[in-house]
Amino acid sequence: MQTNKITSLIQPFAQQFDLSEGVMCDPRERIVRRASDMRGYYVDGDALEALIAARQDPPHYETFECAVPEEPGQVKYCISKLYPGTVGDECFMTKGHYHAVLATGEVYLCLRGQGLMMMKTAAGRWAAEPLSRNRMVYVPPHWAHRSINTGNEPLISFCVYPAEAGHNYGDIATEGFPRRVFIRQGKEVIE
Amino acid sequence: MQTNKITSLIQPFAQQFDLSEGVMCDPRERIVRRASDMRGYYVDGDALEALIAARQDPPHYETFECAVPEEPGQVKYCISKLYPGTVGDECFMTKGHYHAVLATGEVYLCLRGQGLMMMKTAAGRWAAEPLSRNRMVYVPPHWAHRSINTGNEPLISFCVYPAEAGHNYGDIATEGFPRRVFIRQGKEVIE
Repeated sequence: MQTNKITSLIQPFAQQFDLSEGVMCDPRERIVRRASDMRGYYVDGDALEALIAARQDPPHYETFECAVPEEPGQVKYCISKLYPGTVGDECFMTKGHYHAVLATGEVYLCLRGQGLMMMKTAAGRWAAEPLSRNRMVYVPPHWAHRSINTGNEPLISFCVYPAEAGHNYGDIATEGFPRRVFIRQGKEVIE
Repeated sequence: MQTNKITSLIQPFAQQFDLSEGVMCDPRERIVRRASDMRGYYVDGDALEALIAARQDPPHYETFECAVPEEPGQVKYCISKLYPGTVGDECFMTKGHYHAVLATGEVYLCLRGQGLMMMKTAAGRWAAEPLSRNRMVYVPPHWAHRSINTGNEPLISFCVYPAEAGHNYGDIATEGFPRRVFIRQGKEVIE
């Protein structure tokens, strides 16, 4: 944990959601990852290029955020929205990341859709937990995590994590995850 | 922040909720505060004693919890359920607390009911934010907080906070909050 930062005294505030639809109503920030941002992540790179070309590089997933200071003791929250689809027969997924402060966890409360939270440790342990409305997945400290959409509508979660956690995408870009998820003959396959 | 504790490597897990009803389906722990636990908190002590006697010391509020280790970097979550009613004309409320690790915040996502989050700092600043379904209140680090039910059904929130935060009830028991909330002639009054 980084403890060399001061924790600001800020004013309480509120934010409106639509918990049925899985929407943050007035996000301060929207981060969009497009299909072209996913180059190198899927088995079938040609299929990804075809998707980018055919659909004008569509949004792949989005994160809606707020303005909580990134300091120890503060708590960040966001809505994560991963679109449905496949690249070849591999399910749409997020890049996945460790937290930059590795020993910080995250709560994912799924509001909508169907999918998996794929997790791994640097030592090679892995775990996959189903995500669906009403189900919360606890991503413990030390575990990298990636959302995977196995359904036909956006996979949407309300996520909460220590504000100093940060993101480390680089290690996953080189390591990958031990398992991928495909839809074959209408069935989910983890391999 | 306490950083002298090790952050355990635990296995990911999931937990089921009913987000429409505001229920944690399989809580590991249920903490019940009864009316008699609230002695000294309301203006009208006699009305509280009458309530305790007439209704066999009914549950006042409940917290449903899980088993996340109380270590830096872990993230605790719970369901907070505050019953509706008044003591005299003062709305039912929780005791309220600072976090023992003062500089830790908390996210309250309201799932059901109507009420207020009453907050204060040790220096005497106060703030009240409405709570209702779909509204999230951010309780920043350094702010004591108390839920107040101004409606006719249970006030239920999904709460997430740094696992090392802990609870400090003693300071609020002696200080109180600068404002109380009443229902008079059908209207909410903060004074």
